[in-house]
Amino acid sequence: PEPTLRRTDLGIPLPASRPRLPTVLEKDSGTPDDHVPRDGRLIRLTGVHPFNAEAPLTPLYQEGFLTSVDLFYVRNHGAVPKVLDEDVMSWELSVEGLVENPYTITLKDLIQEFEQITMPITLVCAGNRRKEQNTVRKTKGFSWGSAGLSTALFTGTLLANLLKKAKPIRGAKYMCMEGADKLPNGYYGTSVKLSWAMDPLKGMMVAHGMNGEPLVPDHGRPLRVVVPGQIGGRSVKWLRRLIVTKEPSDNWYHYYDNKVLPTTVTPEQSAAEPAWWKDDRYSIYDLNVNSAVAYPQHNEVLSLDSEIQDYDIRGYAYGGGGRRITRVEISLNNGKSWRLADIDYPEDRYRKRDIDIYGSRIDMPDRDTSFCWCFWKYNVSVLDLQNSDSILVRAMDESMMTQPRDMYWSVLGMMNNPWFRIRIERGERSLRFEHPTSLSGPPGWMEKVKNEGGDLLNGRWGERSADSNEP
Amino acid sequence: PEPTLRRTDLGIPLPASRPRLPTVLEKDSGTPDDHVPRDGRLIRLTGVHPFNAEAPLTPLYQEGFLTSVDLFYVRNHGAVPKVLDEDVMSWELSVEGLVENPYTITLKDLIQEFEQITMPITLVCAGNRRKEQNTVRKTKGFSWGSAGLSTALFTGTLLANLLKKAKPIRGAKYMCMEGADKLPNGYYGTSVKLSWAMDPLKGMMVAHGMNGEPLVPDHGRPLRVVVPGQIGGRSVKWLRRLIVTKEPSDNWYHYYDNKVLPTTVTPEQSAAEPAWWKDDRYSIYDLNVNSAVAYPQHNEVLSLDSEIQDYDIRGYAYGGGGRRITRVEISLNNGKSWRLADIDYPEDRYRKRDIDIYGSRIDMPDRDTSFCWCFWKYNVSVLDLQNSDSILVRAMDESMMTQPRDMYWSVLGMMNNPWFRIRIERGERSLRFEHPTSLSGPPGWMEKVKNEGGDLLNGRWGERSADSNEP
Repeated sequence: PEPTLRRTDLGIPLPASRPRLPTVLEKDSGTPDDHVPRDGRLIRLTGVHPFNAEAPLTPLYQEGFLTSVDLFYVRNHGAVPKVLDEDVMSWELSVEGLVENPYTITLKDLIQEFEQITMPITLVCAGNRRKEQNTVRKTKGFSWGSAGLSTALFTGTLLANLLKKAKPIRGAKYMCMEGADKLPNGYYGTSVKLSWAMDPLKGMMVAHGMNGEPLVPDHGRPLRVVVPGQIGGRSVKWLRRLIVTKEPSDNWYHYYDNKVLPTTVTPEQSAAEPAWWKDDRYSIYDLNVNSAVAYPQHNEVLSLDSEIQDYDIRGYAYGGGGRRITRVEISLNNGKSWRLADIDYPEDRYRKRDIDIYGSRIDMPDRDTSFCWCFWKYNVSVLDLQNSDSILVRAMDESMMTQPRDMYWSVLGMMNNPWFRIRIERGERSLRFEHPTSLSGPPGWMEKVKNEGGDLLNGRWGERSADSNEP
Repeated sequence: PEPTLRRTDLGIPLPASRPRLPTVLEKDSGTPDDHVPRDGRLIRLTGVHPFNAEAPLTPLYQEGFLTSVDLFYVRNHGAVPKVLDEDVMSWELSVEGLVENPYTITLKDLIQEFEQITMPITLVCAGNRRKEQNTVRKTKGFSWGSAGLSTALFTGTLLANLLKKAKPIRGAKYMCMEGADKLPNGYYGTSVKLSWAMDPLKGMMVAHGMNGEPLVPDHGRPLRVVVPGQIGGRSVKWLRRLIVTKEPSDNWYHYYDNKVLPTTVTPEQSAAEPAWWKDDRYSIYDLNVNSAVAYPQHNEVLSLDSEIQDYDIRGYAYGGGGRRITRVEISLNNGKSWRLADIDYPEDRYRKRDIDIYGSRIDMPDRDTSFCWCFWKYNVSVLDLQNSDSILVRAMDESMMTQPRDMYWSVLGMMNNPWFRIRIERGERSLRFEHPTSLSGPPGWMEKVKNEGGDLLNGRWGERSADSNEP
């Protein structure tokens, strides 16, 4: 089935009404999150608590362009702050630091005083696809599959507006953000460049609504930052403070998280030499180009006895910093030649007209940037699949940067974006497809190669023969 | 020797005074360019006329951060417009199209009416390193080496200011530019997104000065566009018209030049199927990440009889769209492991303070963007070089996009940016280094492999043995 794009007479994808609201799960009772309703379909990646979870890829993909709040991936460093209904509108945010006019504002006033906009934005965890890195060599991060990303309509106000009111002074360079989630090393906090936060075209916002509903606890209730086109780690939840500074954030989580250290740096070296972590050159902001396959699913079997002679390979892709995916290429011969997939950008449907929604304005017609995932499809003959040992996918963005063939392994295992590879196993009268890794159920091809003592870095994905694709 | 950074008491690199001004060369007499002074050291890439030329890499690199006007690369599509001294200040530029207030302005008024700024900007030809593509398979473009880039201090006014005065109407999306160079298919012209041109942080300008002098004929005298961070083809010379539009430029050169078609498209297919050229997804704007080696030079010989036990490998790197190079990595074992080079960003020296120069202001302190090349260096032991068969270099930008291992061949051969590889040939008591290609003198290693009937696409740079680096 096609990804479901729910259309209304507005001509744009809108979220479906949720058939049933999630409740607090038995699993979460006895944890600090015993007040947080959750969907049981989400796969927990770090045990029961703290809650870090992604949806299984197939239902995520089937929901289409907009992810329901229920299946939206969650990255929590600790306990979810508990905010009572009666306290939501009096939630306070301060704008302070190197500004002429520091102020504190309640959520209620923020909604009344500032223009409210709604934008579709894809958030992506910097750890998306990290399980592949962990299979090559254990990183310091836990294993995400390829569903560590989700898209929603976010409602709120541009950070540029909040900052303009505060009037940053000349020489200020960064905007630090701090949440209300108290962690072993302090409140979660990080920073972005002030010039980005002040640029309306970068679309950075402070959001209180998600798919037309108030934010739920796992997604920052009642107020969060949403930074389009950058890694999820910059989109601080349960937002309390914006601090304008001369230097990047000195928050523990800014230093020791969300970095891609040089591949030459070993875990031991990174522990022994703190200078690596203080070097902001290695901090990650913009997402890099990435893609994954949704169909064939992991372990999907295609019968060769049927009349069907073709197959739609399908998946998603995204770029960073608002840069658009301009091509997605498929190879069935280990990269010797490439075929062009079709790309659909549902995000474009919001650009066509001015629309008021959720007490706000869809802020898209003047934007050239692409801040959401896109979907690609390639129709292949079953005969071609039979004659191949793998499907390779790579996307390219408008800056002509493309996913690399080989993994760039690093200590935190972030931003993993080599060509996405599906292994094809030929059976007697069927083909079976394997994803690189699997979060549950039978292992992926990378895990198998590893388990069998193979060399995943041999330049041919751990396959023994140099030309295993030759019939 | 280090790249020469000429410092004055301003603490920033400034151009050297030119020891002698170039004159019209004998070669150019009898051509339409018989009025254009040129430096005889520039290597002509398309015969005598039109003039397309780059400096030899070594003197270019030795000039340091700022390239002299004499050695600055040139890309001309046809004859250089002749502008008499007395006509320079009355040169007219029109700002027209979907604007509320179309106007025409003389260069004299432009200088008086608008704030004048100076910025160091590296321009790069989209064809830089194209000879490598042509060696793999002939493209439709002529062969540039790896010196198709240069840096200068450009003086003029931001495009944003010119456009603000004209007031683009809502719904306008592109800014078309047209030069005075009359070509077989009309005046040279192209377009960029209007939102970019209107964004002061993108730094797009209309320039009349270069390294403190009025523009010379080969570089657009008296007025040109300079688009930092994008391919040189968008920086229209001899600028006559800015036209605000709803659609990208319909200029012949916008359609049929400056594109990276999908690698699957053959020259024959591109000729037979015009739709490829009309697809603006394949147009190139931002530069991609790239780097090259300056030392060792092509055919440099390192004696093993000397006392010297180490060697500085050195070169340049650049990113696109203002994105900074955050690491440069060197491999001596065909990519199995990587070492970190040191990076120097002379551009940063302009950020430190407000400086007035050339009747303008250095407009850098508020910018986070990096629009210039940087220099990298890696000190290696001669023993390591002896035990290696090649030096590989790759750069990565702040978006974590890195140069790919393999070439992305395309019909026009643009944006070529695979790992830069130097081949090491071991002699009796010396090492000899080979660049991939050479514009003059003995061939590079790619050309040799090709001449010997080798396969440059075999995944090991045409080397026969799979592990030619193992001693």
